[in-house]
Formats: sequence, structure tokens, C-alpha cells
Amino acid sequence: MFSIFDSEMMQRALDLAQRGLYTTAPNPNVGCVITQGDDIVGEGFHFRAGEPHAEVHALKDAGERALGATAYVTLEPCSHYGRTPPCADALINAKVSRVVCAMVDPNPKVAGQGIQRMRDAGIQVDVGLMQAQAEALNPGFIKMMKTGVPLVQLKLASSLDGRTALANGKSQWITGPEARSDVQGFRAVAGVILSTSQTVHDDNPSLNVRWAQLPQDVKAHYDEATLRQPLRVILDSKGTLSTTSQLFSLEGGIVVVTANTSLSFEQENIDVIVVPKSTKGIDLNAALRALASKGINHIWVEAGATLAGSLLAENLVDELIVYQAPKLMGADSRALVNLEGIVSMEHVPTYSLTDVCQMGNDIRLRLHKQ
Amino acid sequence: MFSIFDSEMMQRALDLAQRGLYTTAPNPNVGCVITQGDDIVGEGFHFRAGEPHAEVHALKDAGERALGATAYVTLEPCSHYGRTPPCADALINAKVSRVVCAMVDPNPKVAGQGIQRMRDAGIQVDVGLMQAQAEALNPGFIKMMKTGVPLVQLKLASSLDGRTALANGKSQWITGPEARSDVQGFRAVAGVILSTSQTVHDDNPSLNVRWAQLPQDVKAHYDEATLRQPLRVILDSKGTLSTTSQLFSLEGGIVVVTANTSLSFEQENIDVIVVPKSTKGIDLNAALRALASKGINHIWVEAGATLAGSLLAENLVDELIVYQAPKLMGADSRALVNLEGIVSMEHVPTYSLTDVCQMGNDIRLRLHKQ
Repeated sequence: MFSIFDSEMMQRALDLAQRGLYTTAPNPNVGCVITQGDDIVGEGFHFRAGEPHAEVHALKDAGERALGATAYVTLEPCSHYGRTPPCADALINAKVSRVVCAMVDPNPKVAGQGIQRMRDAGIQVDVGLMQAQAEALNPGFIKMMKTGVPLVQLKLASSLDGRTALANGKSQWITGPEARSDVQGFRAVAGVILSTSQTVHDDNPSLNVRWAQLPQDVKAHYDEATLRQPLRVILDSKGTLSTTSQLFSLEGGIVVVTANTSLSFEQENIDVIVVPKSTKGIDLNAALRALASKGINHIWVEAGATLAGSLLAENLVDELIVYQAPKLMGADSRALVNLEGIVSMEHVPTYSLTDVCQMGNDIRLRLHKQ
Repeated sequence: MFSIFDSEMMQRALDLAQRGLYTTAPNPNVGCVITQGDDIVGEGFHFRAGEPHAEVHALKDAGERALGATAYVTLEPCSHYGRTPPCADALINAKVSRVVCAMVDPNPKVAGQGIQRMRDAGIQVDVGLMQAQAEALNPGFIKMMKTGVPLVQLKLASSLDGRTALANGKSQWITGPEARSDVQGFRAVAGVILSTSQTVHDDNPSLNVRWAQLPQDVKAHYDEATLRQPLRVILDSKGTLSTTSQLFSLEGGIVVVTANTSLSFEQENIDVIVVPKSTKGIDLNAALRALASKGINHIWVEAGATLAGSLLAENLVDELIVYQAPKLMGADSRALVNLEGIVSMEHVPTYSLTDVCQMGNDIRLRLHKQ
């Protein structure tokens, strides 16, 4: 069904899709290449929600040369009217003769309907070329569409013996500048940072993206002018947040998730979501589903030992990103995660290692849910 | 001074030296290659203390073809009578015309005298080819000769959050079979395993090498018949060890290091070393120097959080070998190292990462003293 040329063109479309990595959320990254014979006649990628989709950019680029062409798209062209008209229709109207999709759109509003619509119009549609690579572009979008729950990445940073601060609270700096810069890159991709009122109270963090601190390979990816500040989501079960904290004075939206039904803020950029209580604060499952309903599909968590432990205990973490400094801080130092009442090794949260690398003097591990 | 051919021959000598890796301790690993023109006419390596040195094997292999030959040796030939006669003399007597040594012997009994002796006999001696590789063969021997203190490798194994057992003591198994097999290989190389009476009491470990559990690459290295059981050194400050523990019934020597001057054992394979007390048990510096005086130059430590912490706090650890399971056990689980009273991040023991690899589902880190 697929030729080597097809694979080369889909790889190009995947590379184009990557260029939206730091800007498309909550929309998926999508790339499109249009060819006539052996020539590329049009290229495009989705850059930002509300702006044209990849296919539209590529069709515009191709112009009349789209007639009878082949279009390579990393995701099934959409069939519904969202903020932009359906791309399946755009391809039909441009009279391409063949469409190659890496994967079916998991969005229930599309889910094969875009493909069907094009086939009904007489276009040859081939699906599944480099599907795994296409899926890896949009883990949050795909998880959310399939399960209704956002993808959760939990950042942990500690010494080799799993400590986050000395007994007296001192912790600057456990990890080095390379690791801290890498964190900025993850914040930029996710588009949403989740933390707690406790962390805001203890550390007064900014929880934003600092252009100057982004890794070079991220800065090479897009312009400072298009830097998107992540949405900051703060879990504040009792509603004790003070807007004097640093993060409230910085650019970007804030969502406060609370169980306190009377909580409200005057500041324009703050939304409040009320969810049920749980024994330890708020119902985390309900919080994630409420965030999903706001269109959030990918969350980067930076918080303390309590939230980390609760997310792990409730099996809500899809990926762990662990930074370890080559240091030993000892048993009286502060612990990385609070997990209580585990009585058997079988019940210990266990992940699968997917990547290990050195990051300056530190180590970064990536682990996925088993 | 050195040709490509010289480098090739020294590499071969280094490879030969490696073949003694699991058997020579406390002697160094040494390899020797003898050439006539472009031909190798003799090869040898040191296999076991008390047996002939590498040069003697290679000269025997070369026979009359040693006359006028070049000898490549990974370590300066010895100039003193030990358990065998001086190798410098053997090379002189065989009338080789040139000797290439990777490094000067750091043993104060040799320290350039072997080289001088050969030069005095009219042999051309060139020193320093692939010195770093030759030094890496014998880190314990070199450290001991230079400092009088053995090389100390500390094994640590924990979850990602630095925990060694659940609150109820359960810990089997945190790491997987590959990591445990790797530990067997380190035990086999070191030749000496250090632990404590507390660990013997708590875990009743064997602290020996099980042939069946050695990694395949180690088993490919030597025969089961030449398996050398490591010397087991147990720190027992108060002298409370019970010989009913498993390790006393297994093959191999045992040294008990104690501050209890009246401690003695009837069992033949147990030596007792008495060293001064310290506030936490015994004087660890004195213990290491006492072991050094017994010819021990490379120690593999497997013990609990207290000894690990004391060795780290006193800066006595040359290398950390850390096995981490991709699990999180939580703050109420048992800690990896006890280090008390650290009030500033500057005083946290810090190492340099030299190697990271995946080992089954676990991760192994190697870190050296900075």
C-alpha cells in the first residue's frame, strides 16, 4: 500500500508537525505535504489553535497544483466545523486524487468520518503509515480523546537518595542549571502546569516559561514572540491562596481548583473550578475531568511530596520525569513522595523506564505507566 | 617514541591482563606480549597470586625467540623478590632488546627500579604507552600503593525515591535478577566484601559469589573451577556476631573487625582485627588501614544505611554503584543512607556520574569521588 516515497513524504509531514510543538496546545500537532509525481508542491503545519490547520496551509501553498495531487497528513483530516471549516472538504474541493493519513483522528467528532467523506468523494485514502510516530506527536490529545482524562506528567527532582531538601529546608540547588532548563522545555510543551497552594505558599514559584532559560534546541524551534505562557492550575482545596504570590502578577491564565464553594477572585485572569472534597483535600479524578472539560489535555505537574504521592497512589500519572543530582542527603532530609500504608512490595507504584540521559551533572529518567 | 604497531601490541597485552580480572587480587592484573619484527612470539598474563607473573609466562612461551625481541608489559616489571623472582631480571636474562611499559609500578618496592635495572643492562625501555587504560585495570592496587588505603566501592540499591524496604521491613525484591546478578560480578572482581554485624543479624546474607548467578560475560571470562570466594570482612564493633549465621558455614575466609579486645573465634577461617572505637562504633579509617596491612586493596561494601552514611560522611568512598528500581515506596519506607547534621547544601556528599545503564527493568549508576 505504501512506497518508500510515501514514507519519505510522511516523515517530512511529521517533521513539519513538530514545528507546532510549543504552540498548538490544546490542538494536536499536524503536518501536511502535497506532492505531484516526485515533487513536493505544498507544505503546511498547524501552528496555533484558531489558526488554519496543516492541510489548509499546504493547499494554499500548492495552489492549482493540488489538482490530482497526493496529500500526506499526519492525522486524519477533520470532518466537522470547529474554529475552522472541515479540512476533508478543503481536500475534496481542491480535487486531490489521493490522501495518505498516518492515523485516524481519535476525536469522536471525527473518528473516521473525515476519511469516509473523502472516500465518498472518490479520493483514494490510505491510512496507517508511520502511525506510531504520529501518535507520539500528540500523547495528550490522544489520551484525552480516548479516555476523557488529560495526560499527566509528574516532574520529580531529588538527590540520589530521594531527598528534596535538607532537614532545615535548604534545597538550592539540588539539581544544576541544565536540569532546570530542561524543565522549562517540558513546561513549554505541556502548556499547562499543575501545582498546589501548599507549593505556592512554601516556594512562591513563578510556574511560567522563561525564554532565556529554555534549552537551545527549544529556542531554535520557535520565536520568542510566539512564546505561549502555560496555563497555571493550582489545587487549593480549602481556598487559602493569596493573590500576593508571585505567580498572580505574571502573564498567563490561572485556574484555581478548589472544594471551597465560596472561593472567588476579582482578578480577570483567574478562573475557579469547584470539585468535590476527598479525605486528603480534593478529588483528583474529578479535578482532572473538570480540567479536561475546559479543553486541557496535557498537564505537567510540579508540586510537593503530598500531591506527587496522591497522584501515584491513585494511578493518575502517565509519565514520570525524574531529575537526580549525584548527591546523598541522608535520612533526616525531606522525602520525595508521601505514600502511606503500603504493606506489600506488589502494591508499590512501579513504572517502566523509557529513557535515561545525563543532563549536566545530573541524570534524567523518563518512565511510563506499566 | 611509540608506533601504531606498539599500540596494537600494548592493546593485546591489556586484553591479556583482563583475563586475570577475577583471580589475581590482591596482585595487579598484568599482561605481556613479546614480538620479533611483526610477529607475536610470546604471550602471558598473571592469573593468580603466587603463580608466575605475566612476563615469565610470555618468556616461556617465546623461548629462544625472546633473544633481541620487544616485550610489551602493562605494568613495569618488578625488581624485587616477592613470591616469585624479579621479572626485570628474567627479561634481562632472556636478552630482549626493548621493553615497552604502560606505566611505572606504584609499588614503592619497585617504583622505577625495574626500569632502571633493565636500562642498566642495556635494554631500551619506553614508558607510558596507554597508561590510562593500564591504570584502569588495577584501581585498587594503585590506590593502595599510593595512599596506603584500599579502594572502596559502595553498593547502594533502592527505589527511585531512595528507599530500601517498606515500613514493615518488606523488601524482596526491590531490584530485579539482572541487577542482583551484576552485584555478583562486582563481588567477584573485588575479592573482598565488607559488611556489618547488623546486616548479618538482620539479613543473614551469604556474601559469597554464586557461579550460577554470575553474568554470562563474567562466566565467559574464567572457569568455575577457578572461582575464588571473596574474603568477607564484617565490622562488629561490640563483638556480637554469632557464628550460627549462614556466612560462617560457607567456603572462604572471614575477617572480623572489632573494638572488643576480648573477641575470639575457634573457627579456623576467621581472623580478628582489633581497631579503636569511635563515637559511632569503630574507627573506619583505622579499619581500612588495618585491612590494607593485610594486603587488601579493593573492597566492595554491601551494608545498611548506617555504614553507608558513615563511609560517605568520612569521605572514604571512591565509587558508588547505585541500582535503582523504577518504583516509588514513599516517605515512611526505610532510608538508603543515614547522614546526620548536614545544614548546608555545600556539605552534601557529591559525586561525579561516570556511567548510566539500564539493567533489566532497573537502572545502574556509577559515580566517582569528585
